[in-house]
Amino acid sequence: MAAGLDALLVTPGPDLRYLTGYDAVALERLTCLVVRAVGDPVVVVPQLEVAAALASPIGELGLGMLAWGETDDPYALTAATLPGVNRVAVDDRMWAVKALAFRHALPDAEQEAAGTVLRELRMRKDAAELEALRVAAAAIDRVHARMGEWLRAGRTEREVAKDIVDAILAEGHVRADFAIVASGPNGASPHHEVSDRVIAAGDPVVVDIGGTTAQGYCSDSTRTYAVGEPPEDFLAYYGALQQAQEAACAAAGPGMPCEEVDRASREVLEEAGWGDLFIHRTGHGIGLETHEDPYIVAGNRQLLEPGMAFSVEPGVYVAGRHGARIEDIVVCTTDGAERLNIQPRDLAVLGG
Amino acid sequence: MAAGLDALLVTPGPDLRYLTGYDAVALERLTCLVVRAVGDPVVVVPQLEVAAALASPIGELGLGMLAWGETDDPYALTAATLPGVNRVAVDDRMWAVKALAFRHALPDAEQEAAGTVLRELRMRKDAAELEALRVAAAAIDRVHARMGEWLRAGRTEREVAKDIVDAILAEGHVRADFAIVASGPNGASPHHEVSDRVIAAGDPVVVDIGGTTAQGYCSDSTRTYAVGEPPEDFLAYYGALQQAQEAACAAAGPGMPCEEVDRASREVLEEAGWGDLFIHRTGHGIGLETHEDPYIVAGNRQLLEPGMAFSVEPGVYVAGRHGARIEDIVVCTTDGAERLNIQPRDLAVLGG
Repeated sequence: MAAGLDALLVTPGPDLRYLTGYDAVALERLTCLVVRAVGDPVVVVPQLEVAAALASPIGELGLGMLAWGETDDPYALTAATLPGVNRVAVDDRMWAVKALAFRHALPDAEQEAAGTVLRELRMRKDAAELEALRVAAAAIDRVHARMGEWLRAGRTEREVAKDIVDAILAEGHVRADFAIVASGPNGASPHHEVSDRVIAAGDPVVVDIGGTTAQGYCSDSTRTYAVGEPPEDFLAYYGALQQAQEAACAAAGPGMPCEEVDRASREVLEEAGWGDLFIHRTGHGIGLETHEDPYIVAGNRQLLEPGMAFSVEPGVYVAGRHGARIEDIVVCTTDGAERLNIQPRDLAVLGG
Repeated sequence: MAAGLDALLVTPGPDLRYLTGYDAVALERLTCLVVRAVGDPVVVVPQLEVAAALASPIGELGLGMLAWGETDDPYALTAATLPGVNRVAVDDRMWAVKALAFRHALPDAEQEAAGTVLRELRMRKDAAELEALRVAAAAIDRVHARMGEWLRAGRTEREVAKDIVDAILAEGHVRADFAIVASGPNGASPHHEVSDRVIAAGDPVVVDIGGTTAQGYCSDSTRTYAVGEPPEDFLAYYGALQQAQEAACAAAGPGMPCEEVDRASREVLEEAGWGDLFIHRTGHGIGLETHEDPYIVAGNRQLLEPGMAFSVEPGVYVAGRHGARIEDIVVCTTDGAERLNIQPRDLAVLGG
């Protein structure tokens, strides 16, 4: 077992799906894959979910299954499979109430976050995963390509977002994860979602959208549109933003530290005088989660390797006025980086 | 502070929404409400989400806000607001990786699950919450009332579920949380979701559906339908199941232990000879989460009080053949219990 761990405890979520293919919903009843340094792995499953687990990819793995009934203590049951353990890792997204229950059931075991181990696997995508990300990226590109159908003056952000959500599903996702439509001054808030604001002629609109495909991989792409002719003070920075995004994509490649990719986009905006308005990191890894390692942020000295996939999404945010962000998913290759999102990045002016 | 706690740490999720109204998405960046025994509460927020937080109900509460930038350590920032704490509670759904980060940032503080405190508040619904649950229940009842539009022989479970999801949204939810369509033998798996199985004439079909309304409250109701004339061995237990569900609803009321409500439905099925096939608890509380306290399960001696809301959903599961479940949300009143779901429970035979 990696890093001297005695066991890895994985509840439903992206780590469980990565390790087993089992796409279970996290609920209050304990489902837990127990990977042991000594002994075979076992899966602890509520009795009423045994049939669903057996019908899932977990059934084909032939793992030992420990079913528990409604009045059993599943934490004690799990602990009994782990005699004498001193160090266990729990999946990063495990509910705290479950991690605390494991602390009581395994009082001698120090806990740590499984992410420190699993991130090393998950952030290096294999060919099948890259293909899944390609499929997801193409799906969200098709949604952006249709933006002119929905985005126009007189409609509310919420109305536009609803059409986008429908299209995210129609174009090849099983779940729409987010649909940010941030018009005019709302564009100055990077995580604004939607509101009942009516989009007006001349509004820049940040559209940041993503979903999850049937294979479980995520899409995430942002384009900023202008509804009719945008104001001068928006055009003043849009070009620099486009260059900044280009510069970060160009900087990405094997052996490059993540923080240097962030630096590349930040420098362009700083030199153009907009650095103070770029208030977030340049990007985040993507895979079974929309946000995962590696993070493209100052201080992250992780070196990029072929197969690492991440967003490049600098932004400029002018409080009270508007904002802009351009985001592509990028994959590190053996000699550079490949953008999976290929929708045009020049400012698209839609009918005002 | 309750129970001798020095602080309560609440990240995005149902507890945060309950306490503040802020409906933030749980992401890797730390957002955390810090309720302190000494000092006013503060909210730790990523800088890029400050605008969104201020625009949310949290802005109106006038709470102190600590914004952190992309290269700050938000756990250290939070810890600095909590000098000398010995006992902190973390929200039940906090990601383990965050709870572990708080353990490192607050090494002298014992952690426990906030649920032990917050459940006492959350499981006693006030009038506004009960009204929100009533709205949710009426919305899901309208979906069940339309089942004949979609559920018929020759269609797959997945096709039917897709129509149901659309209707969950159209009838007054902002999110469809689940749409279980379990036909024929799939009905024997309580947590079967959907498959590509083609529904056949004569199939019993378990339809367990729910969503979340704009106010954040959940619906959850199950009816079992027959597509055409159902087989004799299904009819053999459906009547007993209906009586069992009725008995549990009749048993519910103020002062009644939760386990006795479970007992009431179980006894009916045991006496009719089907007890071994009722393999799960009778129900779960419901509110901002689909599953929350109080659980209607053997061993739970919690006494019901007016305002507690929970499901009553006994089931019978015959491996390889079919299953049935009937579920209503029920509220404990001052002199009994009120069912919020009022769709007919007699077996509905839809066009085969």
